[in-house]
Amino acid sequence: MQGVILENINTPEELRRLPVSDLSELAREMRNYIVDTLATHPGHLASSLGTVELAIALHYVYNTPDDKVVWDVGHQAYAHKILTGRRDLFPTIRTYGGISGFPRMDESPYDAFGTGHSSTSISAALGMATASKLMGDTSRQHIAVIGDGALTGGEAFEALNNAGVSKANILVILNDNGISIDKAVGGLSRYLVKITSSQKYNRLKESVWRKTGGDEKPAKGRNFISRSLAALKSSLLSRSNLFESLGFRYFGPVDGHDVEQLVDVLSSLKTLKGPKLLHIVTKKGKGMKEAERNPVTYHAPGKYDAETGLQLHSDNSQQPLKYQDVFGHTIIELAKANDRIVGITPAMPTGCSLNLMMAQMPDRAFDVGIAEQHAVTFAAGLAAQGMVPFCNIYSSFMQRAYDQVIHDVALQKLHVVFCLDRAGLVGDDGPTHHGVFDMAFFRAIPNLTICAPMDEHELRDMMYTAQLEGQGPFVIRYPRGLSVHHDWHNEMHSLVVGKGRCINEGDDVAVLTIGHIGNEAAVAVEKLRQEGRRVGHYDMRFVKPLDTELLDEIGCRYSFVVTVEDGCLEGGFGSAVMEYYEPRRVEAERLVSQGVTLNDDNHKYPVVKRLGIPDEFVTHGPVAKLRSDCKINADSIYCEVLYLLSPES
Amino acid sequence: MQGVILENINTPEELRRLPVSDLSELAREMRNYIVDTLATHPGHLASSLGTVELAIALHYVYNTPDDKVVWDVGHQAYAHKILTGRRDLFPTIRTYGGISGFPRMDESPYDAFGTGHSSTSISAALGMATASKLMGDTSRQHIAVIGDGALTGGEAFEALNNAGVSKANILVILNDNGISIDKAVGGLSRYLVKITSSQKYNRLKESVWRKTGGDEKPAKGRNFISRSLAALKSSLLSRSNLFESLGFRYFGPVDGHDVEQLVDVLSSLKTLKGPKLLHIVTKKGKGMKEAERNPVTYHAPGKYDAETGLQLHSDNSQQPLKYQDVFGHTIIELAKANDRIVGITPAMPTGCSLNLMMAQMPDRAFDVGIAEQHAVTFAAGLAAQGMVPFCNIYSSFMQRAYDQVIHDVALQKLHVVFCLDRAGLVGDDGPTHHGVFDMAFFRAIPNLTICAPMDEHELRDMMYTAQLEGQGPFVIRYPRGLSVHHDWHNEMHSLVVGKGRCINEGDDVAVLTIGHIGNEAAVAVEKLRQEGRRVGHYDMRFVKPLDTELLDEIGCRYSFVVTVEDGCLEGGFGSAVMEYYEPRRVEAERLVSQGVTLNDDNHKYPVVKRLGIPDEFVTHGPVAKLRSDCKINADSIYCEVLYLLSPES
Repeated sequence: MQGVILENINTPEELRRLPVSDLSELAREMRNYIVDTLATHPGHLASSLGTVELAIALHYVYNTPDDKVVWDVGHQAYAHKILTGRRDLFPTIRTYGGISGFPRMDESPYDAFGTGHSSTSISAALGMATASKLMGDTSRQHIAVIGDGALTGGEAFEALNNAGVSKANILVILNDNGISIDKAVGGLSRYLVKITSSQKYNRLKESVWRKTGGDEKPAKGRNFISRSLAALKSSLLSRSNLFESLGFRYFGPVDGHDVEQLVDVLSSLKTLKGPKLLHIVTKKGKGMKEAERNPVTYHAPGKYDAETGLQLHSDNSQQPLKYQDVFGHTIIELAKANDRIVGITPAMPTGCSLNLMMAQMPDRAFDVGIAEQHAVTFAAGLAAQGMVPFCNIYSSFMQRAYDQVIHDVALQKLHVVFCLDRAGLVGDDGPTHHGVFDMAFFRAIPNLTICAPMDEHELRDMMYTAQLEGQGPFVIRYPRGLSVHHDWHNEMHSLVVGKGRCINEGDDVAVLTIGHIGNEAAVAVEKLRQEGRRVGHYDMRFVKPLDTELLDEIGCRYSFVVTVEDGCLEGGFGSAVMEYYEPRRVEAERLVSQGVTLNDDNHKYPVVKRLGIPDEFVTHGPVAKLRSDCKINADSIYCEVLYLLSPES
Repeated sequence: MQGVILENINTPEELRRLPVSDLSELAREMRNYIVDTLATHPGHLASSLGTVELAIALHYVYNTPDDKVVWDVGHQAYAHKILTGRRDLFPTIRTYGGISGFPRMDESPYDAFGTGHSSTSISAALGMATASKLMGDTSRQHIAVIGDGALTGGEAFEALNNAGVSKANILVILNDNGISIDKAVGGLSRYLVKITSSQKYNRLKESVWRKTGGDEKPAKGRNFISRSLAALKSSLLSRSNLFESLGFRYFGPVDGHDVEQLVDVLSSLKTLKGPKLLHIVTKKGKGMKEAERNPVTYHAPGKYDAETGLQLHSDNSQQPLKYQDVFGHTIIELAKANDRIVGITPAMPTGCSLNLMMAQMPDRAFDVGIAEQHAVTFAAGLAAQGMVPFCNIYSSFMQRAYDQVIHDVALQKLHVVFCLDRAGLVGDDGPTHHGVFDMAFFRAIPNLTICAPMDEHELRDMMYTAQLEGQGPFVIRYPRGLSVHHDWHNEMHSLVVGKGRCINEGDDVAVLTIGHIGNEAAVAVEKLRQEGRRVGHYDMRFVKPLDTELLDEIGCRYSFVVTVEDGCLEGGFGSAVMEYYEPRRVEAERLVSQGVTLNDDNHKYPVVKRLGIPDEFVTHGPVAKLRSDCKINADSIYCEVLYLLSPES
């Protein structure tokens, strides 16, 4: 399955001993290996197929790991992993205990920098190049491989702007396939198409290139002709001016699937100092017909038939809908009734299902590119004019727009609805993608309403409530994956903001949950009840504002409160509950210390045991396994309650 | 003082009734009014002087407030405020209860969008333009005024990329003065200099412009000549291609101090649909010799002599040094001893005093432009290669790089030292700039060490400790303004990470403080002690990891703990203390409920009263006043402790 060349390549050093003429065959073998492996071990297929030749050429030409290669949004780095000592581990990719789906510094010295979120590679490579310069190492090479989609992320531009005036030895390889996860959008993307599709321009440029002796300074004696050609060249290159205007030397476009040419070009570039940008054109999904034809679906296709490439669809007609699809259908339903509603996604229309609205209401649903910061302020601008934008951003990507939520939305009390998709543990993508910090980081911000549905009916009710006139900044967080019921399409109702609900009343111990993880608690509480222990269960619904009336009621009735959240323990939902009870305890304690006897108004408040994500980054793996590790699954909740109730010390 | 024209302009409507020939004189009067007023009411002088003509021209040409003008980093908007009903209130600017130093939607309908942080204006204006389009309003104009410095912020690029392909009616005015607060840096800045300094290019462009009939589509019949000229024009315009390549129509550069020309140009642009960028060249500090000569100093010069323009320096030889200067001197001292140390600032070298290091060690101190995201990942790249970057970012601007701290630094345990300048309440700049969320949002992140010095000696010790080999991601937060002692230059010592210190032992009540606000507590505790009440005071130094040993000791000794922080109460330092005590209380409570008698190991833990910033955005004004409002000053702490101890209920 690995092929005769590939099975002998254990390190890049061995790769570099191959004759260059073997590299195409190696690429073919690697592509087969990737397609065969991912057929049964799902992963990011199409991106990885697009960079096989590039990965080979980079490790062939450069002296990795001494030379540094940073792969932006590392899901394009599978070929790189296979070439750098992880060939046989490759089938473990994204499995619990297996190798990560993204580069990780602690996984391999060849993974120069960890990349799960996009648009960081140029900054990181520039940092490395600057370090080399300061350490007096002038030969080390520093390469950032970045897609045209990732290049729209503002950080990439900040880095280009900074790198362009540095003398740092940095090569940016623009891996241009016209796609991020969905189709790339925006002015930059249109511009790149112009560059690469202008045949005449390319022929001319090539000829100029040759005549001027590549990009080297002209030898003396041929000054005049060189200068003339340089002038012509500069005028011809005007279209690639965007990068040159920032101080980069631009090369390309080059066919990113011609491995010998890549080796040739990279070898030349190696000798040039300063900031350079090489524009290569690749095809996402290259070499697999289905994936080439449909790179969006085949970005991460799940299981498929390795021969035909056809996806293997399991029968999920009996399953609940995904939360994502419930969101996608519901926003259309709401938008039909309320013409102030618009939808916004930063480059994740398929992932979050806003693509449904984009198809049905193209004028009212916007994919703004990989641009979380812009997405939020753009939403704020819409809201300032009376629209009600639903801005759907994955929880972990929302970290990118934290300031904009504070500065542009919350401070101005603008009516923007943030739908935080993939909140909580996301599973196979691991620590870069778990959405576990949002409740803590948003709870600190004034004016925000923050809620989380326990099932899809609550999600719909929350979306309905959020868009009502008079609401302000509104955050709804929900997880990746399946919802709860078989009939998702309830009639939507308005919820009272800041009100939770009682699922079960009990004695002694009350379990307070927020969002979908409440279903784990429900299982635990049911088991306990079957064992004769009446444990309370409350779905609090709102992290902010808290249902203080309900908390008071619970405070009177129970000795122990157990909070459960699929978010970090530091400053999260459980802390909010504690923060509510504590001042009341202080007052009670003060009275006791004064000799006052407590009564119904000044009673003892329950102590709070918080269950949630511990203070460490959670690895990748199945969500159920990770929940168990974090002790927020039904079993753990059951054990915790039992411990509190048990007579043994 | 206001001048005869100005004193009759109460609204833009009145402005629009003036003959265009009066506008230069109005500009002169406004400039005088600004210079005279800010001489005694300190504010952002130089930026405001640079935009007087622009503000006049915009309100003259456009139908504000129906047409929308968004002023990026609103400190350039003083002239705008004067023209829009706030002329007589102008002397109250930045004072408690007075008008804000930035546009605020709730202050005036002419303030279309609040802007304190940079690079948001294009996104907001695009949002507004999109709203107008959806509402069927095709005549409304949407204008973003953005400086060349702010344009380096990634969000601005994200917005350009998105706007360039929209059909939205948006005009971006690039206010190019070569300066942000310090000198603008980076490839973009260099590029703009090229455009504006190329005289030949400008002359040619102008002639082509005229010949092709502005930027309008050529009339039929003159197709050939038009096409030829268009080709020539396109080649001549190649240098301004950066904006055009993103899909904008580029106009300029135009003299931003020629108000009649501005009126002329804006009137023409008003009739053009789609995304347009007008490049105007202005002089920061225009019209005031000292400010023109030294725009960095005169960005916010404090008080000065209105006649001569000379700054009025009060004698501060008896004052402690500012924390900023202690940082600036100390990083140099450390960098001399440890050649792995480098300094990084995103465009705030003067504000944070990294300019000292930039002058002494230009190779090792980097101003990366307004680019917080890049600053952090750039630091991570440096650290990945063994350097120890000190990345100095204002606390409220750090909100821009939250994801990068999580994803690039904390997750990879890279040794980056973050110095969070202007943490806590900053005073006159108000809610956009208060650095009150950092402890809450960083405390949630694994692997971070977070500390705050109570005085400049602790700051130096923390900086010393942070750079020692073996440390990981390290956050030091400290406030804007004066430190504590007269001799700042202590001999630096290594601190034990996660260890606090006892300042005063006491009975019953212990005050636990973090950072500089501890000095307020010290005053309160001293007063209480003089009144015979032995109150404990502990400077915890570290928010993370907490000194659990010390907390255990305190837990045995006191009934009440009062925490004090100049950060938000939700999830902050006080919550961290609670989170430590609570599980211990749960266990104690469980034992009690089982009939176990508590002993020294299973004792009752103190209840925690938390003092900090309440859950609302804090206005602008003197820090002492704001601390009093937030009940974290010495008086409030005194009262709180007294209440806990007092016998009355």
